[in-house]
Amino acid sequence: MEHRIIIPKNKTVILSTAGVAGHEEGAGPLGGSFDITDNDEDRFGQETWEKSESEMQRLALSAALSKASLCENELSVMLAGDLLNQCVGSNYGLSGFRIPYLGLYGACSTSAEGILLGTLLCSSGLRRCAAVTSSHYCSAERQFRFPLEYGGQRPPTAQWTVTASGAFIISSDEGDIENAKETVLPTVTGVLPGYIIDKGISDVNNMGAAMAPAAADTILRYFKLSGDAPCDFDMIVTGDLGREGSGILVDLLYSEGLDISKQHVDCGCMIYNADEADKHAGGSGCGCSAVVMASHILPNITYGKLKNVLFIGTGALMSPLVLNQGGTIPGVGHLIRFRGDGGM
Amino acid sequence: MEHRIIIPKNKTVILSTAGVAGHEEGAGPLGGSFDITDNDEDRFGQETWEKSESEMQRLALSAALSKASLCENELSVMLAGDLLNQCVGSNYGLSGFRIPYLGLYGACSTSAEGILLGTLLCSSGLRRCAAVTSSHYCSAERQFRFPLEYGGQRPPTAQWTVTASGAFIISSDEGDIENAKETVLPTVTGVLPGYIIDKGISDVNNMGAAMAPAAADTILRYFKLSGDAPCDFDMIVTGDLGREGSGILVDLLYSEGLDISKQHVDCGCMIYNADEADKHAGGSGCGCSAVVMASHILPNITYGKLKNVLFIGTGALMSPLVLNQGGTIPGVGHLIRFRGDGGM
Repeated sequence: MEHRIIIPKNKTVILSTAGVAGHEEGAGPLGGSFDITDNDEDRFGQETWEKSESEMQRLALSAALSKASLCENELSVMLAGDLLNQCVGSNYGLSGFRIPYLGLYGACSTSAEGILLGTLLCSSGLRRCAAVTSSHYCSAERQFRFPLEYGGQRPPTAQWTVTASGAFIISSDEGDIENAKETVLPTVTGVLPGYIIDKGISDVNNMGAAMAPAAADTILRYFKLSGDAPCDFDMIVTGDLGREGSGILVDLLYSEGLDISKQHVDCGCMIYNADEADKHAGGSGCGCSAVVMASHILPNITYGKLKNVLFIGTGALMSPLVLNQGGTIPGVGHLIRFRGDGGM
Repeated sequence: MEHRIIIPKNKTVILSTAGVAGHEEGAGPLGGSFDITDNDEDRFGQETWEKSESEMQRLALSAALSKASLCENELSVMLAGDLLNQCVGSNYGLSGFRIPYLGLYGACSTSAEGILLGTLLCSSGLRRCAAVTSSHYCSAERQFRFPLEYGGQRPPTAQWTVTASGAFIISSDEGDIENAKETVLPTVTGVLPGYIIDKGISDVNNMGAAMAPAAADTILRYFKLSGDAPCDFDMIVTGDLGREGSGILVDLLYSEGLDISKQHVDCGCMIYNADEADKHAGGSGCGCSAVVMASHILPNITYGKLKNVLFIGTGALMSPLVLNQGGTIPGVGHLIRFRGDGGM
């Protein structure tokens, strides 16, 4: 069986994380945990929304490097991408770092793809990798939907693009691990990259439904391959299916004999208060799962509140142009297994 | 020095390649070497240019798998990306393969980025990876410049987006290498990922000038780190600077004391006949270096015509939106060292 769960060759940890978010995210239930929150109408001191998004990535990577006391030349590569056409959030946001750059496109699965690839690159002999991603409500809205001024109405299944960026420093450096031995660092104990799954959904206002089958496919394969049970995990985190997609995922898995309802949470459902009517089915965008993992889930592993966590980052791999041509929305879900006790 | 040349842990070879191209490319000097050439106005049997581009990727990966006698479940991952917004050429083109999918964005450096990452993933313990990319003149033209019907004029420094796709199967499987021992397979003996370099060029009709400094930065670092000299290589291949960017690269390096003029060739200058006025400074687009490497350079290593080759894939990491906002064009150049005698 070639498409197996890939176990890192060496102990690989998340050495540091940083989360940067907009003012609405800052006012949400996780607001207290972000490293930087903007109070300038989410402009981060920039003139355009695209530059604001880039600035969030710059701030996030700078903060993650600083928290790990690392210089640029101590990172082997940075892996980054975002939702903007040609991934310009990352290209411009990270252009000031003299660190080898490998661009990714995984839509909302980018944080998971970056952590997964960073882990494998550490197994290949690189010492430390960064994974960075972002999304911005204002840059995404005008690119994917309507000009902000239009004030378009949305159906209840629609998700709200999160204004945020998350950065992760992944390390298998023995010195890093030795120095941190008093701390519980999240250890990546396995990864399972996803297939492209397209079940024919074409409603751009229901991305959760398009991505849930991809998450289900990866989760089912994981439990089949590993022999684990959902109760072996404190939390099974998806990012970002929102409320609509989360329901579909739990139902799809239940129909296959797998009940994850007790362990499952979704980053898109966690980032905003549930009673915020504007946010409809919850958050989405590359920055959503990135900032929830960077500022909430992974720190909770360090604090000892969580020990075994599965994270499935999901992405909708469509473009507005292809949907206008009658295309459907393919999804992908990449899985990462974290452990908090340092064991493999 | 952390940002070193990365040497694969195990012998890693390009097991097979495949090149698919449009009719103008097929009529060019390398036309005889492509696996598949379209005679249906570059539509590849599809209704839209985006679907035509996706179809090229599907055909290229299918052909590369077939040439290596591999099934889908014998590939650990496929790494792919393209120039289209949200990389839909890859997302849709490869959605029919049940192979774990990791999306990339490297603009015209995507083939180099994919081979580089595939090589490192083989070092991490994966058995075989595919790298796939594409570009299509008609889908790129309307996205980046003007509707085809407009018939806009171009300055002599402009490049022509190549209609082509290339696929590469990268393997460190001992059985593969043993089976191929009668054949000279191109061996990847080192990789050097590039930094993002932005020298302030903002002319979308002179991508070569924007990318040349990134290629120069990576090439200079390579020769400094390795102690090699240009004469140690039969060929130093860039893809795709075109004629304008190639001249700038050679001059930039010469001013730093490095003369690559005898070894340097550029994929953008090789794909079309030099007297084709329409093509101006030569070819560009993810598919250009992909198909030139897949169908010409790497096969020539197998035929014994080339032994030591440096390939530097360059990308212009801009978007039309950011340029309209007054932005400049960052470039990146990833280097791969190939050897044809099986040595490390």
